[in-house]
Parts: sequence; C-alpha cells; structure tokens
Amino acid sequence: MRKIYVIGIGAGDPDHLTLQAAKAIGRTDVFFLLDKGETKQSLVDLRERMIRGYSTPRRRIVEGRDPDRDRAPADYTGTIADWRTRRSQVIEDLIAEHLKDEETGSFLVWGDPSLYDSTIAILDEILGRGAITFEYEVIPGVSSVSALAAKHRIGLNRVGQPFQVTTGRRLAEGWPEGADDVVVMLDAQQAFTGHPDAEIYWGAYLGTEDELLASGRVADVADEILSTRAEARERHGWIMDTYLLRRHASD
Amino acid sequence: MRKIYVIGIGAGDPDHLTLQAAKAIGRTDVFFLLDKGETKQSLVDLRERMIRGYSTPRRRIVEGRDPDRDRAPADYTGTIADWRTRRSQVIEDLIAEHLKDEETGSFLVWGDPSLYDSTIAILDEILGRGAITFEYEVIPGVSSVSALAAKHRIGLNRVGQPFQVTTGRRLAEGWPEGADDVVVMLDAQQAFTGHPDAEIYWGAYLGTEDELLASGRVADVADEILSTRAEARERHGWIMDTYLLRRHASD
Repeated sequence: MRKIYVIGIGAGDPDHLTLQAAKAIGRTDVFFLLDKGETKQSLVDLRERMIRGYSTPRRRIVEGRDPDRDRAPADYTGTIADWRTRRSQVIEDLIAEHLKDEETGSFLVWGDPSLYDSTIAILDEILGRGAITFEYEVIPGVSSVSALAAKHRIGLNRVGQPFQVTTGRRLAEGWPEGADDVVVMLDAQQAFTGHPDAEIYWGAYLGTEDELLASGRVADVADEILSTRAEARERHGWIMDTYLLRRHASD
Repeated sequence: MRKIYVIGIGAGDPDHLTLQAAKAIGRTDVFFLLDKGETKQSLVDLRERMIRGYSTPRRRIVEGRDPDRDRAPADYTGTIADWRTRRSQVIEDLIAEHLKDEETGSFLVWGDPSLYDSTIAILDEILGRGAITFEYEVIPGVSSVSALAAKHRIGLNRVGQPFQVTTGRRLAEGWPEGADDVVVMLDAQQAFTGHPDAEIYWGAYLGTEDELLASGRVADVADEILSTRAEARERHGWIMDTYLLRRHASD
C-alpha cells in the first residue's frame, strides 16, 4: 500500500517545524510539489530548505503544475470545486506515475492543513474516484493564525467568548453575526477598512525575514497597512497576510 | 532586563514540539510550573520530559500553587477575572523571587498560547501593575484544534465558509449565529447532545497514548461518546477533549 503524508510545515519560520513533521519528511520517498504559477520564491526556498535539512539522500522530488483558475469568479464555490477536481486529477496522475507500492509520498502545506487548504479534500476526492489507492496521514502544523497571535502577544478569544475565522470575501459582506472577534484569512480586498472602530492586529509574511506587523484602531492604522501592504506586494510579487479584528463587546 | 518565554508545547504528543520551542526551552534558566490542583499526571510527565530533553543542566524549576477557583460560578467572567488577578499575583511573586536580572524564565503552555489560555493576559496584568519589569515573547504551538482536525483528516472550514470557535457553555445556549461549523473547547457539559442532526468530530487526550476519537451523526454517536468520556475521565481522573460540530449549510 502506498502511504501519503500531508505535512503542516508552519507559517513561514523554518523553526515552526515540529519534530513530528521533521520525522515524516525523513520517512518520505517522494515529495510532491505543485507550482502555483505565482512567484512566491521565498516560500519555495523555505520548502526546499526543509526537504534538504530533514530528508534522506534517496528522496525524489516531483513537480507538478497547478491548473489555472479564475481569481475573481462569479460563482466562487462552484469555481473552486471545479478547480479542485482538475487539481485532484493532476495529483492523481503524479501519484500513479511516481509513487511505487510501499513507498511514502508527502505534500508540504504552509501553516496547518486544516485551515483553508485543499490538500485533504483533494486526496479524499482521489480516493473517492477509486482509480488508485493509498493510506494517508495528516501532520498538524503551527498555523498562520497562531503565528499572528504570538507575534502580537494576544489571545484570539476574550475570556469565555467565541471568535470566528472567516475570509475577506465574507467580511466584505458585513461583520459576521455571533462574534466580536474575527480572524480574517485570504483577504484580497482589505475588507477591514469597512470597520474603522475595530482594533486590528495585522501580519504579513509571518515568521519570515520579511515579516510585517501593525496594530491599532482601524481608523488610525488602515492607511499605513494599505500602503505597507501595496508596497510589499509590489516588491515581493505576492503577499500572504492575515489579521484579527476585535470590536467592543456588543452586550 | 528579565526575559520570559510563553511556549506553546503542542497538544499532547511530544513530537508536536517545534524547533523554535525546543530552542527556547534550551535558553531557559527557570521554568515556572503551576500545579492546577488536578491530577493530570500524564501531562505533567510530558512537560517534565520536554524540560529534561531540551534544557540545560543548570536550569531551575520553580513550582507554584494555583489559587483555587469556583468551577461553577454564577458570574463566570467576573470570577475568571478575579481568579486571574490572584493568579497573576502568585506568578509575580515567583518571578520576583526566582528570576534574576538578565535571566530567562519560561511558561510551558499546552497547545497554543493564543487559544483559551490565560498566560499572556496574566503577564500583561503583571506588567500593568508595574512592580516588576521583564520583556516577553510568545512561541506558537500546535493547537488541540489542529491536532483534532489532523487526526480526523478534516478541514475546519468548508470551501469559502467561516467557522466559529467557542465554549461548551456558549453552545449550551444554542447553535451560534453566523457559522455552520463550530469548534468547541472547554465543554464540561457535553453540549453537543443538543444538536442531534449535526456531524461531530470528537477527540480526547489528543496526541497522547490515551487518545480517543469518535465521529458521526450526533444522534448515532452521542451515547458512545458520553460513555467513553465518562469511563475515561473516571480512569484518568481528568479529561481534556474538544470537537468540531458541522451542520448542513443553512442556505
């Protein structure tokens, strides 16, 4: 039986790697890397550094090409589902061609595989089609959300209170019901600007040498974040950021 | 200047430790351990094993005694705030007495320090009083939530959807608004039983040898979880569990 690891490698700091992840990297015969067609060279470098640092000399690296997808689709969920299916076909072909019986393959995932990542769903989709079989295991990692909170030295929740994790797309529709503390991921539209009275704890390139942090009342720091973000995105060619928005308790 | 680390050590598996956490343990002169007055011997053993494994021989261990608190208070937030203040006084005294200038002290926190843990707030409260000074740094860890999702091989969110993280106390008041996926921590009352049509992904003692997992429709698995939980709690003298509840999308 083939074995596959889905390995959370942390939010960007090489030292976010867990001992469990390092051991799984050491047991890997084949690393599957998908080129997202974007220039995230510092992240690619970090991934290669982890492979070099913890894998055996006999390991192989197989690179695939992610299918293109519409970045601003009218039907978001449908478009993602379609993209995921095409992506799962690419990955199924890579596994079938490159991973032999009794071998172990790994996918390295930024942050933690349970947070807004499609690798688990893709492996389930491949298994559901039934054309190839394998067993797989998920290795948790330090999420970008935990890294953000650590750098700002804050808790995500207030005492006994809930918090919500959501997307920029959702936040742009309005403050979510049911929580005064909101963690926002995947925000391409800087939806925080719609909430000037909230406190924001923002971070980009968390854990890396390029890390950026800002915090304060949105009304006071939004301009600084917007210009810092635009400048950094221009310089690096990409940006990965996340933030916590905290408003005064509604009760 | 005194230095303090708040170190997330993962959810229970010794291999959840990150390289960053292991290095911080190695730089620590004084470990501050608080006895919660409960018998969580396997967790205490794990913490001591981490200290033994990664610290230097010259490190010292200082044990304090947590103040008692009412476990079923009428005024939850007020009682916690009061308990936190008393706890911060105990910790302030320990730091003042045992951590010399230029030394480094550490607090080891289960899971990730940003999730329903009071250590950061307590250090801020001590600094706010101004009687002693120190600088401090937070080291993120693998949270019990990430460990739960990894073991069940699930994402916490569905595509493009939010999720909420809350407490059993809150869930007992009804399904939270604004999310169909709810992560529940600190549930002493098994509030999931009120939602028979939801899917549950439950785990206890995550990452340890005593790990328990169960999943399915609440109506089908609630009895099994309740009896497993009661039996395990009786046998170990304590239980630490968490779960994800997922209901069909409301729209």
